Amino acid sequence: MTITMGRMVDHLTKGISMPNATVDLLEPGHKDAEVHGIVIAFCASQYVIEQAVSLRANFIITHEGIFYSHQGIQEGCLQDSVFQHKSRLIADSGIGIYRFHDTIHRYQPDGIMMGLLQALDWHTCVAKQLPAATILEIPTMEVREVAEYIKAKLHIRYVRVAGELSMPCERIGVAVGYRGGGELAIPLFSDENVDLIIAGEGPEWETPEYVKDAVYQGQRRALIMLGHAESEAPGMKYLADTLAVQFPMLPIHFVEDRPVFQIV
Amino acid sequence: MTITMGRMVDHLTKGISMPNATVDLLEPGHKDAEVHGIVIAFCASQYVIEQAVSLRANFIITHEGIFYSHQGIQEGCLQDSVFQHKSRLIADSGIGIYRFHDTIHRYQPDGIMMGLLQALDWHTCVAKQLPAATILEIPTMEVREVAEYIKAKLHIRYVRVAGELSMPCERIGVAVGYRGGGELAIPLFSDENVDLIIAGEGPEWETPEYVKDAVYQGQRRALIMLGHAESEAPGMKYLADTLAVQFPMLPIHFVEDRPVFQIV
Repeated sequence: MTITMGRMVDHLTKGISMPNATVDLLEPGHKDAEVHGIVIAFCASQYVIEQAVSLRANFIITHEGIFYSHQGIQEGCLQDSVFQHKSRLIADSGIGIYRFHDTIHRYQPDGIMMGLLQALDWHTCVAKQLPAATILEIPTMEVREVAEYIKAKLHIRYVRVAGELSMPCERIGVAVGYRGGGELAIPLFSDENVDLIIAGEGPEWETPEYVKDAVYQGQRRALIMLGHAESEAPGMKYLADTLAVQFPMLPIHFVEDRPVFQIV
Repeated sequence: MTITMGRMVDHLTKGISMPNATVDLLEPGHKDAEVHGIVIAFCASQYVIEQAVSLRANFIITHEGIFYSHQGIQEGCLQDSVFQHKSRLIADSGIGIYRFHDTIHRYQPDGIMMGLLQALDWHTCVAKQLPAATILEIPTMEVREVAEYIKAKLHIRYVRVAGELSMPCERIGVAVGYRGGGELAIPLFSDENVDLIIAGEGPEWETPEYVKDAVYQGQRRALIMLGHAESEAPGMKYLADTLAVQFPMLPIHFVEDRPVFQIV
């Protein structure tokens, strides 16, 4: 049976109630175009698109946008040589790209969160699901041990930690992507009584400053920032594994990209 | 002559045209209160406030807010024990706190930028001043050398780098604080022809993803993220040095806080 881009989008979004404004979009691409192979990735980076071309996959499903902005392309960047080079590659390849962001976060439970918890082997430790965070109860570990555990499980080279490395913790709030900001993360400490928050990223003068103050006051608070891609790529890998079972006739590849930063 | 909090605020804001909405505010504090000593810092953290108490300084001038948010306190946090502990300390101390953010960024040139460039010994390398960035021309250095130079000059333990460490660069865009986001930073590469951007922080899927793509395309682009406080504290130190000369009768102290993160 032929799988079109439109049919795949319908499959991914089935039963999910969406807000009027969403960044999820098939562009470029056409709903009647037949899918020959799928690449799934955190971001439709230059590398990921080139990998899709090599793998003869004509459909990319990606969590973040193509042009370095949550809301689509910035006008001031249209003449930029990096944008132009990437735009040409996309046009020449004929690949369809589906941004799959808001929908997967609205899965019950959040599909990106599920992938991260599976990768961390903590999917059996869920104490509570909140709309934008999950509360875990784990056997007691020190913050340093949690950091090392995460690095080993996710194969990442570093994490940024606020708080005391020797602090024991067992109740953890997990918030993927950009949900490490103060408005979402700080109430998890007081309302949900977590010791530690594990997040993707967020402004440095919000939750990290709060944790610094808390520690200085002698209160038990810690924060581990994984990195945005590091916290969300496992969810896209999990999606690739799920789709591979649901569509065994289609070549489906998860493409892992390099981290954006190195520490010097 | 008596210096009041109001007179000091007038001195700091004199001649600066401000937008209607500003986060700059004397709160707590009263314009008629006499200033006995001043502490200047990046952020009015628990540590900084306690230092002010020890130093018998009754006025703090700080760049970022007291309660972990750009726009003031989040309602959901009023019952939080860290907020309450800090609020009590502030009330009991009777200290006045002036948030000095928008005004100092509107100095010509930007006072926070000036402090950073002085600390980096690059104030003589300015090629162009833009409203939210400064373009430098430096003798050619590799990105790795620039990173090591910055760490030594600012006494910071790490920076996050996107791009090739061996790339030579001589034209640099500097953007302090949260100005490392795509909308402000990416156009510096194309419009101002910089090789490298040095910024405080910004969303990871914007400028860092752009630089990763550029490098993969073979284009010369690099990015060094210093950290938000690391990029703006030198500007507040510079302010402290300036005020100490202007008000020799007043004890004026710059208080340096610990970094929010450590790398594990």
